[in-house]
Amino acid sequence: MRVFNFSAGPAALPLEVLEQARAELTDWGGSGMSVMEVSHRGHAFTELAEQSEARLRSLLAIPSTYRVLFLQGGASAQFAAVPLNLTAHGAAADYLNTGTWSGKAIEEARRLGVAVNVAADEAGSRYTTVPAPGALRLNPAAAYVHYTPNETIGGVEFPYVPDTGAVPLVADMSSTLLSRPIEVSRFGLIYAGAQKNIGPSGLCLVIVHEGLLARARPETPSVLDYTRMAAHGSMLNTPPTFAWYIASLVFQWIESHGGLAAMAARNRAKAELLYGAIDGSGFYRNPVERSCRSWMNVPFMLERAELEPLLLREAAAAGLTHLEGHRSVGGLRASLYNAVPLAAVEALVAFLREFERRHG
Amino acid sequence: MRVFNFSAGPAALPLEVLEQARAELTDWGGSGMSVMEVSHRGHAFTELAEQSEARLRSLLAIPSTYRVLFLQGGASAQFAAVPLNLTAHGAAADYLNTGTWSGKAIEEARRLGVAVNVAADEAGSRYTTVPAPGALRLNPAAAYVHYTPNETIGGVEFPYVPDTGAVPLVADMSSTLLSRPIEVSRFGLIYAGAQKNIGPSGLCLVIVHEGLLARARPETPSVLDYTRMAAHGSMLNTPPTFAWYIASLVFQWIESHGGLAAMAARNRAKAELLYGAIDGSGFYRNPVERSCRSWMNVPFMLERAELEPLLLREAAAAGLTHLEGHRSVGGLRASLYNAVPLAAVEALVAFLREFERRHG
Repeated sequence: MRVFNFSAGPAALPLEVLEQARAELTDWGGSGMSVMEVSHRGHAFTELAEQSEARLRSLLAIPSTYRVLFLQGGASAQFAAVPLNLTAHGAAADYLNTGTWSGKAIEEARRLGVAVNVAADEAGSRYTTVPAPGALRLNPAAAYVHYTPNETIGGVEFPYVPDTGAVPLVADMSSTLLSRPIEVSRFGLIYAGAQKNIGPSGLCLVIVHEGLLARARPETPSVLDYTRMAAHGSMLNTPPTFAWYIASLVFQWIESHGGLAAMAARNRAKAELLYGAIDGSGFYRNPVERSCRSWMNVPFMLERAELEPLLLREAAAAGLTHLEGHRSVGGLRASLYNAVPLAAVEALVAFLREFERRHG
Repeated sequence: MRVFNFSAGPAALPLEVLEQARAELTDWGGSGMSVMEVSHRGHAFTELAEQSEARLRSLLAIPSTYRVLFLQGGASAQFAAVPLNLTAHGAAADYLNTGTWSGKAIEEARRLGVAVNVAADEAGSRYTTVPAPGALRLNPAAAYVHYTPNETIGGVEFPYVPDTGAVPLVADMSSTLLSRPIEVSRFGLIYAGAQKNIGPSGLCLVIVHEGLLARARPETPSVLDYTRMAAHGSMLNTPPTFAWYIASLVFQWIESHGGLAAMAARNRAKAELLYGAIDGSGFYRNPVERSCRSWMNVPFMLERAELEPLLLREAAAAGLTHLEGHRSVGGLRASLYNAVPLAAVEALVAFLREFERRHG
């Protein structure tokens, strides 16, 4: 029995991927070993690593001037790795503040001695908007501009890629990467924790333009040093092999289901269905400005907030899980990553309508 | 068909653990989800996290004055985390150099501005020995003394715990932890990459005395900051949930097989069997001083080195895998972690005798 899982991360994985992993969990490819038990330096795993990078490059059309890294630590480690790799202590960088995760990135950059210029801050809307393209107060001398294309907690998403001129654009794409095609060449650096659209937690993808290498601070921990990791094929130390393996299966699954254009169409349809149901009701509401609502994370609440615990219990009983809002904001949230099928959203919408009928 | 796997890491896992993981890979505990797909903040996973820490504390008899952390990045990340958490920039620390991994720890500490005093260096024996207890040139003002109780590549192991007086002792126990009982109170800090005796790669255990907290450098990345991680139950950010889950199953497996005293007896018997076969032969040899040979990693070579590729091919054909020495030193190596059964070592010894009979 499988449920419909709306977790914001670690999130649902494609059932076909899990079934393949299960089938070969004690004997991977006829090796007589689990993929967890083989050396990362051996032929079988290095082939997996090479093929998975090639497949990711193909899916995202990553130009050859970019390096792809498979690292540990998640996006939070990248909050530190970005300034350590791209700035001298005390240098200036621009950050756009659109909610919880960009706020955490700013906090970590300041901790590491970055002179952070907050080039936009959506506090005025309680983080239910993104800045207009013309409203960014960018510093042309900044080492980079950092932003969060999708705020997983707030459910706010940029409908455009900021134009930062000659200054490299750095994007925390944890909830965005692989959900749709992107134009990699617009970015200097993209990173994404795996536990949304990529694989299990414990893995973080980094896509970095080679022009940004070789400028790390001398005190950068080696495992966070892009240049050293790139020189060693992400194997300066032992990588998280099982998470990398699952990611490789997810890449194949995306490819066999039509690639990122097909993912985008599916994801857009899922989001439109759920937002339509919420907006068509006076019982539920979504607080985010319509032009910048996330396709991936849909926070919503009840006009009668006291009914939320009951809704969560009844949803769980109906096989609809992880609908709690983030503990920092409460309310409800449905995350609609690639592995969440349209049928899950249809079931959720039907449940919400029935709940409203009984309690509205 | 399962093989006998002598990998140095990622290494063999208990078959019972893999079979349980397989049985519940798409439906963990009746949740209708994989353990990879559930929120680390949810009740089910937080219960797993608490129980696994409690079980680890029980197995190792960890005093209540120590904090246990489940981190990412592996031991290599700890090479940086140790100085960042325990020293001011420019402060002095003692390191014992007994081979490749202690050498890497020294290199990283120097990169991070530690005034490293190499309190012992076994270069004179080509790292086939450990220093005598009285030969350590310790600095009583050092922030800590770092050593590597077991060198995974050299196969050298300390038969004693260094006495460092009031200076905290820091140990990279990647290949040692859970292979036998240890006296935690002798150490200020213990860390261990999981991929030997604990679980899959992508997880690192840290056991730190609470007196060593709250002294991190301000520029320590949050994900490497012991104090911040301890305050958040190792969940300052999303932890590597699947690796943690497998580790929890391994802890149960150790407990149900007699705990660490039983592991130690098994491991000693396995090592004695293999060393006995090597020493009893003029065909194979182990270069390490007898008093400090590793129970976990047994490097050996053929007097006729040109036969090594043939041996590796025939061993693989006989279902004995990962017997290559580390790429930096060549030769052969058998790692004998907890999950390698005595039957594997018996099969290896029989194979080596037969190979010698045919080629000796």
